[in-house]
Amino acid sequence: MIVLVLPVPERKLVSRLRQAARRSAVRRARAGVIAGIGDDCSILRVPAGHDALVTTDFSLEGVHFRREWHPPKSVGHRCLVRGLSDIAAMGGEPLAAFLSLALPSKLPQTWVDGFMSGLLALAKKFKVELAGGDTAASPTGVLADIVVLGSIPKGRGILRSGARPGDRIYVTGAVGGSAAAVDLLYSKHKSLNPVSFPAHFFPTPRIAVARVLRENRIVASMIDISDGLSTDLSHICDESRVGAQINEQAVPSARIGKPLRTVALELALHGGDDYELLFTARPRTRIPKTVAGVPITEIGEITRRKGMFLVREDGRRSELRPSGWEHFASSSRRRKR
Amino acid sequence: MIVLVLPVPERKLVSRLRQAARRSAVRRARAGVIAGIGDDCSILRVPAGHDALVTTDFSLEGVHFRREWHPPKSVGHRCLVRGLSDIAAMGGEPLAAFLSLALPSKLPQTWVDGFMSGLLALAKKFKVELAGGDTAASPTGVLADIVVLGSIPKGRGILRSGARPGDRIYVTGAVGGSAAAVDLLYSKHKSLNPVSFPAHFFPTPRIAVARVLRENRIVASMIDISDGLSTDLSHICDESRVGAQINEQAVPSARIGKPLRTVALELALHGGDDYELLFTARPRTRIPKTVAGVPITEIGEITRRKGMFLVREDGRRSELRPSGWEHFASSSRRRKR
Repeated sequence: MIVLVLPVPERKLVSRLRQAARRSAVRRARAGVIAGIGDDCSILRVPAGHDALVTTDFSLEGVHFRREWHPPKSVGHRCLVRGLSDIAAMGGEPLAAFLSLALPSKLPQTWVDGFMSGLLALAKKFKVELAGGDTAASPTGVLADIVVLGSIPKGRGILRSGARPGDRIYVTGAVGGSAAAVDLLYSKHKSLNPVSFPAHFFPTPRIAVARVLRENRIVASMIDISDGLSTDLSHICDESRVGAQINEQAVPSARIGKPLRTVALELALHGGDDYELLFTARPRTRIPKTVAGVPITEIGEITRRKGMFLVREDGRRSELRPSGWEHFASSSRRRKR
Repeated sequence: MIVLVLPVPERKLVSRLRQAARRSAVRRARAGVIAGIGDDCSILRVPAGHDALVTTDFSLEGVHFRREWHPPKSVGHRCLVRGLSDIAAMGGEPLAAFLSLALPSKLPQTWVDGFMSGLLALAKKFKVELAGGDTAASPTGVLADIVVLGSIPKGRGILRSGARPGDRIYVTGAVGGSAAAVDLLYSKHKSLNPVSFPAHFFPTPRIAVARVLRENRIVASMIDISDGLSTDLSHICDESRVGAQINEQAVPSARIGKPLRTVALELALHGGDDYELLFTARPRTRIPKTVAGVPITEIGEITRRKGMFLVREDGRRSELRPSGWEHFASSSRRRKR
């Protein structure tokens, strides 16, 4: 399908993406991208003894970001983070990324350049080559779909289904920082300085943490926090057919803004897009306080009894419902019920 | 990111996709999908001695299809064909598909069911498992991005860059049938009976033909005809740094409709979405008249001199410009210049 109405004609856009990708290319001796952009398919070599990991994630204007709130570099960064974070959640190593990108006809070229520079800077940091994708004219706003291909030693993928009753529950870093920034965007209805809110605009995928956890074989189940702690914990519970209880005061709420302030518990429990890791380990496993420079916090326990509960400091228990936030829909629909 | 406004709530949709995918699953002993829908990533095993092929293709409402013209089964079928055809163009075997699907809030559930049944019927036919993807609310029409992962014996991918001067140029099947149907859709401004126009509504990806060509090592370069013969031939010429001449009367124009009639040469040369294969082979290579039941036609020759030319029966030559059609944009923009 030929596309005429891109800011840059499609052939030129593909050529630009190709040059940009080449500059970002990381050649590997026995693995990686054998043939990238410029043919019907990309050819990739998965390292011997490894399986391939594949994840796909939309970044749609008006759903996952707003052009008036998110600088293009942040949109490009966040687009790739979504895929890298999924690779981390399996304990994997990213190999290559594929970008499907549909652009509206009136989009300024500077926006596309900013988006690509944000995406490619993160790709370079994690040695991920942009190896292909698709381009199209968009009938509406910017539409991106990122595919990340990674590798994992055979049989070593860390699944959501590995939790067992008695497992301790851990979270990396701090949670709620991204949702708190979104709350400010909604209430102030104007843009924020991205530098003051990195958890939202430039989150770090926990690839390095996941590598250590995988290599030390200390994790039983894992997921990344993209929908919100409560919702992502419910995915582990569903897949492992277990329940969970979370100690309210143990939850590491993020501190954001200038001056720094701690975000509300509700945001820490239900705010999405943190890209921290949520994992469980057997009760006797010793989990370090810090992994790859990132604090690890024990926040609760997996239970045989189904359902999720929040335990307050005074011992009172209340049901913890999966209530991840939907960020950029109309405000009346922001909370999932 | 949690989505509320899908016809079916997201968790239920994912569960439905998962069940549908499981029913379509093809288990392989040493290759294929190790873990599919339901975790952060899918885990895939590429057969020993093979590399992975990856391709991504948008199917966007208003750009690649129109809901008033294309029944949902056709949209689902065509969505997956785009990916399978790219795998065929490399000489590869498809292993698994990943679907990112964003749906507008008011879309009838029957439409989603029809779309999935068209996609999964084709997946089953080619033993491709639906192994993952993403779902979201769409800010506009139906937005799909299909990723197909395939395999190719190491070093045996058939590239666009393999053509050499003197190579003969071949095409599978017939061309222009899909574009002719699109022409009728535009001129009549009403829907067609899909059964009478299978080349447009239910095209066949040439996986079986490509397998024979790869196994017999008789092809030098290959591409699938998705943008139109002239445009896709120009991709081979660009990547191989050669030119081409096409014998006008040799081009196998499709016969479509009821009663059958031969499509115009212009549609055969420039019409996209045929999903036939365009390939070159060394002049001494014997290419069968039929491969896997599909006719193969010699249509021209690769030249050292750059540029593409059309040679008429009387020997007159004219320049052949890459002029693939853009199908569903506003009609003033339909032709690429």
